[in-house]
Amino acid sequence: MEHVHRHIDEHFKDYLSAVGDLVRQPSISATGEGVRECARLLADMMTSAGIRTEILETGGNPVVYGEIPSGRKDGKTVLFYGHYDVQPPEPLELWESRPFEPAVRDGRLYARGIADNKGQLMAHILAVRAFRETGTDIPCSVKFVFEGEEESGSTSLAPFVEQNRERLACDIALAVDGPMLSGDVLNVCLGCRGVLNFEIEMETARFDCHSGRGGDIIPNAGWELLRLLRTMKDEQGSILIEGFMDGVRTPTEKDMEIIAGLPFDRENLKNLYGVPSFGLDKNGYYTKLNLLPTLTINGITCGYQGKGSKTINPAKASVKMDARLVVDQNPLDIAEKIRRHVARHAPDARVTVHGFMHPSKTDGDLPVCRTVVSALEKVYTDKVALSLGLGGSLPSYVWTDILGVPALGIPYANQDSGGHAPNENFRLDLLQKAVHASAQILHDMK
Amino acid sequence: MEHVHRHIDEHFKDYLSAVGDLVRQPSISATGEGVRECARLLADMMTSAGIRTEILETGGNPVVYGEIPSGRKDGKTVLFYGHYDVQPPEPLELWESRPFEPAVRDGRLYARGIADNKGQLMAHILAVRAFRETGTDIPCSVKFVFEGEEESGSTSLAPFVEQNRERLACDIALAVDGPMLSGDVLNVCLGCRGVLNFEIEMETARFDCHSGRGGDIIPNAGWELLRLLRTMKDEQGSILIEGFMDGVRTPTEKDMEIIAGLPFDRENLKNLYGVPSFGLDKNGYYTKLNLLPTLTINGITCGYQGKGSKTINPAKASVKMDARLVVDQNPLDIAEKIRRHVARHAPDARVTVHGFMHPSKTDGDLPVCRTVVSALEKVYTDKVALSLGLGGSLPSYVWTDILGVPALGIPYANQDSGGHAPNENFRLDLLQKAVHASAQILHDMK
Repeated sequence: MEHVHRHIDEHFKDYLSAVGDLVRQPSISATGEGVRECARLLADMMTSAGIRTEILETGGNPVVYGEIPSGRKDGKTVLFYGHYDVQPPEPLELWESRPFEPAVRDGRLYARGIADNKGQLMAHILAVRAFRETGTDIPCSVKFVFEGEEESGSTSLAPFVEQNRERLACDIALAVDGPMLSGDVLNVCLGCRGVLNFEIEMETARFDCHSGRGGDIIPNAGWELLRLLRTMKDEQGSILIEGFMDGVRTPTEKDMEIIAGLPFDRENLKNLYGVPSFGLDKNGYYTKLNLLPTLTINGITCGYQGKGSKTINPAKASVKMDARLVVDQNPLDIAEKIRRHVARHAPDARVTVHGFMHPSKTDGDLPVCRTVVSALEKVYTDKVALSLGLGGSLPSYVWTDILGVPALGIPYANQDSGGHAPNENFRLDLLQKAVHASAQILHDMK
Repeated sequence: MEHVHRHIDEHFKDYLSAVGDLVRQPSISATGEGVRECARLLADMMTSAGIRTEILETGGNPVVYGEIPSGRKDGKTVLFYGHYDVQPPEPLELWESRPFEPAVRDGRLYARGIADNKGQLMAHILAVRAFRETGTDIPCSVKFVFEGEEESGSTSLAPFVEQNRERLACDIALAVDGPMLSGDVLNVCLGCRGVLNFEIEMETARFDCHSGRGGDIIPNAGWELLRLLRTMKDEQGSILIEGFMDGVRTPTEKDMEIIAGLPFDRENLKNLYGVPSFGLDKNGYYTKLNLLPTLTINGITCGYQGKGSKTINPAKASVKMDARLVVDQNPLDIAEKIRRHVARHAPDARVTVHGFMHPSKTDGDLPVCRTVVSALEKVYTDKVALSLGLGGSLPSYVWTDILGVPALGIPYANQDSGGHAPNENFRLDLLQKAVHASAQILHDMK
C-alpha cells in the first residue's frame, strides 16, 4: 500500500489538473446549466480511470453510475455516494476569481463546487487511478453513485435506489460531503437529520385596508400569523405541535460518550456566527445539533416592506419553515401533524410542503464501520472523531432505509471551504489527504 | 339664500368644468410632480372667485392661503382646511380612464384626487363663486388653508400654523375630507385619532446561517421578533406596553349617545372588507374605531421570501407598525414608551420613528359646532350624524392644539369614492350637494 500512497503524492499535480477539469464544467441543478455535459465529462473521467461507467436516466438529472467488480469472491462492497451538481455561483461580484475558472491561491483551489462536492468525489476516482497506475489490485468491490440533484433536494434519488436495489447492493455506503470540524478534525458522521420544508399562508381579508379604519377591527394577517406561530413553539423553544416529539429518543450513554470525543470550541462558534455569547455547553450543542429536531423560521412575508411607512392592516401573511428531524421521525407523518395543528389553530391557513428528506442513523460499532474509521485514522493519524450525525440533511436514508445497509458521512473538505458561498475552496493539503483516505478505505475494505 | 342655492343648481355644469380643470393638473406630493403648478392654478381659481389669495412658502410644498374679510365687525370666522396634493395614480392598468383626464361615467366624475381632496375643497370655492355671482354678501369671514403635503404626512403644516397664529385666527376649522357613511349618511367628526409610525429592526447573528447547523442553536431573528411582539400585545389584543394606555378615557354616556346615533350595517362591513364574519356590535365597532388606540402590524420582513424553500436560520427581521392614538395620548411620549419596552425585551433591536400626528378632539356641544351641524342638516335633511372621530388621522390637532379652536371633520364624498385607489370618483349629486353645504355654512356662520 505504501507505493500507492507514494504514487498519489508524486502525481498529485496531474490529479489536481483532473479536478480542475471537472470544476471548470458548470453543472447548476437549479437552472440546469451544464448538468448533462458535466455528467458526460465525469463518466469519461471514470471510464479512463478503469471504472465500468454508465449514465443512468432518472426522472430528473441522470446518475453517473460506476462499478469495479472485486477480484475476490468474498470481498466486501463499498458504495461511494456523491453529487456532481453545484449551487448557483451568485453573487458573482463577491468572487475573487471567476467561479468556473479554477484558481490556486494560498494553497487552496477556488471554484464553485470544488468542496461541494466535486473535489470530494474526485478523491475516490483519483484513488482508483492510483491503484490502476501502480498496477495494484483493489481488494474490494466498489460502486459509485454520483447524482445530479443534491442541490435541488435529491428528488429522483430514492426512486432510483428503489428501482436498482440489486445493482446497488453493498456492505456500506459512504457519503463524502461537507466540512471537517474546527482544528482539521475529521469527523465520521453516524447519520444525519431529515428535513421537512413547508410554508404556511394566510389571508384574513379581501385587501390590505387602511390601518385607521381596519386596525384592531379587521383581522390583521401579521398578528394572526404570530398567534399561530406562538401555538407552535413556546418561549423556551419547545415545539408544541401535538405528536411532533413522539419517537424522539432520549440520548443514550453511548451517545454521550460519542459527544465526549468531539471537539468543542465556544470562541470559534461565537466568531463563526457573529453572536455575542454562545449559551450552550458541548453536550447541549451536540444534543441540539444531532439528537433533537428543530422548527426553524426560514422567512416571513407580510404587508408593506418598502421604505418608510404605509399605514395598512395587511390581509396576507406567510411563513416559510423547516423542521430538521431525527431518527424515528417521518417527515410525512410530521407534515400531517403540522397540517392538523394549523387546521385547529388557523382553519383558513394553507400549508404547502416544498420538500422533505428522511433522517438516517447508523451503528458505529458495526465491524464494517470500524474498518472505515480505522482506515481513516491511518491517514488522519489521531484526528478522527465519531459524531452522531450531521446537523444538516443528506439523502443517506436511501442506503439505510431502502437498501438496509450502514451509511457514514465523511467530510473531507476544510471547515472554511464555504460550500454554497462565494469563493468556495478546498485546501490542497486536505484534498491530497482525501485521495489518500479514499485509497486507504479501498485497501482496507477487504 | 334661496337664490344662491338656485344659482348653484343652474350653473353646476360650469362649476363642474372648474373642478375638472383642477383634477386635470397632477400634484403628487410623493414625487413632487405638478405640485407647484397645481398651487398656482388653485390660487388663480380662488382669486377669480374673489378670494384674496397668496401662495405661502413652508419648508416643503407651499400652502395656498385665502381670505375673505367679513362685512360685519362682529362676524364669525370659519377656516376651511383642505389639501391640493394627491396620491400617486398607480397602478395605472386598473384605471378605466386616465387618472388625470377627468371623465364622467354613470353620474360620477372619475379622476385622481377628485374625492381626496380636490372636489371637496372646490365645494368651498364654488360656494363663494355662487355668492359673488349672485351679488350676495358672505356674512362671515372666511379663511382657506389648502396644503400640499397631506398625502406625505403634513410635515410642514404644524410649523406653518405656529408661525401664522394671528393670520389664521378663527372661530372654527373645518376639514372637509374622507367618505360619507353607508347609506349616504353625512357624518360630522368631532376629532380624529393621532398616529405614530415606527419600525423595529433586529439582527441576531452575522449572516443567515444553514438551518441544519444553526437552527435552535443560533438565535433566529424570526422567532426573536415574534418573542418581542408577543410582549407587546396579548392573545386578546390588549396592548401590553407599560404606560401605553395611560390617559385613554373611559367612554362617557355622551360618547355612547353619539355612537347610538350612527348607522351600523354589519353586512356592509363584512362585504366591504371581505371577512367571513364581523364580530363586533355597533358599540364595539365605534368604540374601537374612535375611542381606543391600536397597535397594528403594517408589514414584516424576515429571511427568505422567494419561491419554494431555502433552509436558512435568518439573522435579520423587521416589523413596521403604526399606533393610532386617542386624545391625551402624545405620539412622542408613546414612542418613548415603545423604545423603553423594546430596550427591556430585545436590547439589541433598533426602533425608528417614521412619522407621527397628534390626535384631536372637539366638543360638539359648542354653539359654533351646532351652527355647522344645523347648516348641514338643511342641505342633507335628516342625514347628518355626529361621530366621535375619524378612525384615521388628519392634522386637525393644529387647529385644536396650536390655534385652540374647535375643528370638525366633514366628509362630503361618497362612501365608495375610492380615495388612494384606482378609479377614484365623486358622485355628481353629492358633489353638487357639497357646494350647497359649503354655501349654507357660509350663510349660517354669521
